[in-house]
Amino acid sequence: MPVLVMKFGGTSVATLDRIRRAAKRVGVEVAKGYDVIVIVSAMSGETNKLVGYVEETSPLFDAREYDAVVSSGENVTAGLMALTLQEMDVPARSWQGWQVPLITTSAHSSARIEEIPTENITRKFGEGMKVAVVAGFQGISPEGRITTLGRGGSDTTAVAFAAAFGAERCDIYTDVDGVYTTDPRVCEKARKLDRISFEEMLELASLGAKVLQTRSVELAMRYKVKLRVLSSFEEQSDEAGTLVCDEEDIMESKVVAGVAFSRDEAKMTLVTIADRPGIAAAIFGTLADAGVNVDMIVQNVSELNYQGHEGGVTDMTFSCPVNQVKRAEKALADAQAAGTLTFDKLESETEVAKVSVVGIGMRSAAGVAAKMFKILSDENINIQVITTSEIKISVLIERKYMELAVQALHDAFELEKAD
Amino acid sequence: MPVLVMKFGGTSVATLDRIRRAAKRVGVEVAKGYDVIVIVSAMSGETNKLVGYVEETSPLFDAREYDAVVSSGENVTAGLMALTLQEMDVPARSWQGWQVPLITTSAHSSARIEEIPTENITRKFGEGMKVAVVAGFQGISPEGRITTLGRGGSDTTAVAFAAAFGAERCDIYTDVDGVYTTDPRVCEKARKLDRISFEEMLELASLGAKVLQTRSVELAMRYKVKLRVLSSFEEQSDEAGTLVCDEEDIMESKVVAGVAFSRDEAKMTLVTIADRPGIAAAIFGTLADAGVNVDMIVQNVSELNYQGHEGGVTDMTFSCPVNQVKRAEKALADAQAAGTLTFDKLESETEVAKVSVVGIGMRSAAGVAAKMFKILSDENINIQVITTSEIKISVLIERKYMELAVQALHDAFELEKAD
Repeated sequence: MPVLVMKFGGTSVATLDRIRRAAKRVGVEVAKGYDVIVIVSAMSGETNKLVGYVEETSPLFDAREYDAVVSSGENVTAGLMALTLQEMDVPARSWQGWQVPLITTSAHSSARIEEIPTENITRKFGEGMKVAVVAGFQGISPEGRITTLGRGGSDTTAVAFAAAFGAERCDIYTDVDGVYTTDPRVCEKARKLDRISFEEMLELASLGAKVLQTRSVELAMRYKVKLRVLSSFEEQSDEAGTLVCDEEDIMESKVVAGVAFSRDEAKMTLVTIADRPGIAAAIFGTLADAGVNVDMIVQNVSELNYQGHEGGVTDMTFSCPVNQVKRAEKALADAQAAGTLTFDKLESETEVAKVSVVGIGMRSAAGVAAKMFKILSDENINIQVITTSEIKISVLIERKYMELAVQALHDAFELEKAD
Repeated sequence: MPVLVMKFGGTSVATLDRIRRAAKRVGVEVAKGYDVIVIVSAMSGETNKLVGYVEETSPLFDAREYDAVVSSGENVTAGLMALTLQEMDVPARSWQGWQVPLITTSAHSSARIEEIPTENITRKFGEGMKVAVVAGFQGISPEGRITTLGRGGSDTTAVAFAAAFGAERCDIYTDVDGVYTTDPRVCEKARKLDRISFEEMLELASLGAKVLQTRSVELAMRYKVKLRVLSSFEEQSDEAGTLVCDEEDIMESKVVAGVAFSRDEAKMTLVTIADRPGIAAAIFGTLADAGVNVDMIVQNVSELNYQGHEGGVTDMTFSCPVNQVKRAEKALADAQAAGTLTFDKLESETEVAKVSVVGIGMRSAAGVAAKMFKILSDENINIQVITTSEIKISVLIERKYMELAVQALHDAFELEKAD
């Protein structure tokens, strides 16, 4: 029998009624002849409640106990889903991570999957079981302790099962009906994509389009798992949702597939620092040690003998999440006090946003960056920082222009039109 | 190091504050030099919530999935207790049933403990761990599925661990401060007992004094585990609570240790049934098949050739929980219709209660029954049914006299006075 993996997120199993609705979808696929592996999250709100308990009990918690506590939400859903399927006369049973066993590293609370032996579940399929309901997000370490994969880890669980079992497809049921050209709340012309490449999805995911966890997309790309994102709240056809797939499975790509954005960015500039070898390593080493996630970096052209400074001086600008600004300021001030860094001034600008255009077509099309800058310029939007990758161009702009920029780019690249 | 087992019930771990309070008690015992095994229940209300989910999902649920779901509450408490102890600098870790492993039969939702290998936990004690926090109520079947021991099973888990590890004592922390001569809500002169024998405790437990699960007392008696029942809500001395122990550890017993009662009893009488061999087996087999828990049984003296009946006829009276009366009536009516039973009439009386006096001293003291009947007679309380065991006398009376009977017996046997 061909195997299908179906994953239901927290909102899709938030109540017993929604679990029933999800189980009906599973029943439809079983009727088509699939052996189905269902991956479930905790009922929405449960994991947050458990995390709250742990953090209140022990702010610097033992991650092994954290994992033992927070993994329990998925176990409840897995059992209830199996019972619901049984009520519909679909032979099903639940599997907790250690029962599979889904073996992970010992990096508690952010473990990586090492191995998924398929024998146990395959044998049960052979004995007539039609659905294996697996608790997502959890596994077992080589030491026999419960591990978790980090938030959103159930997507990764689903893709890993699809890879291990050679599944025909991995369907991710969620509360949106697919991947859009941009966020419909910001641009009403946003259009659902039928297909998107792994590479584009990766860029969109890491740029803040929170449809799929980045790691799950990476894993799907590596193992060529066809991923489909679709809504658990709508009637589904075989063509529903968005298929995330290999580039080769997409006939002809637009140059730009989507416009992504991230609202909560900050820009910081170190003014007049000595420009000597190793200065970038000193700055960003300091920030990394303080747990600041630096994103974009720009270094100004160096100026020689500026205002009595010996050797050259320069300015260094970088962006980071706005809630890490205080931490970055403290780390840099401490380094200044300790004498490991010298700068005249640190300027923080917290009212900025990042807007990006993403598309694999950029690789072969020239002038996308120039077009993007022209569009923003026509709207009188000043670009503060620019970074590019092979399939993405990102700019930092004043936050108040973010919606305008997204809409203008969406229009100019004609993303509302189907491929 | 000597081992101590401490068990905390649902109300004792109902909130993070209460878990902290319980952890402090554990810390006190660790400071005395014990290696401690803590058995925890789910936070109160959690198990009921999960059972509710299962029953709503699937009224005739697969007990294997029921166990997988309802066991998750204990896992949460175990992790939180371990974290709380760690915060107090007490080396602790949590153990789920399958990690110990606590091996049970495959009788899901009412499994019996088969074996508790001690190697894993003992090795950790050797490595410096001071407290093993074990999720109560759960185990693992030979097939590798999660099992539960039935409601109140955490008491049984605690006693089984105490037996397996040769613990010095098994302390059961609960929301009452010990075992009383009777329920203080019914008789204000009720006195807490310092010690009670296993046999007396068993009779009291099965008679409705819900301090300890009957199975846990049986197990403690078989393995000579010293059980102490005490409150988690009061400051504790070494002499707190009630010690449930071997008869030999109690210097001199009173004739009567306590007065137990059960409010929700019903009395049913089958009037004019043919008195032939096997008739009792037919009646009570029918009731057992219908799941009716028959308690007391009285058969009237047989009467020959009564009103044209061939052979002898008799009446049969029995008691059962009041919420099983409808089920009993239906089962008996069905048997009458099927011709397997013949009787003239079935009378049900739902306003009755059972009152019992219990004490190992009865074995050697004559006249306890006579004294009990005299006390009730002096209060003009009519006795409807009587049963006796070696250490117990129970009577069925009208429910409205229950409190009066308990108080009169408590007074007359002078239970308010210390041993």
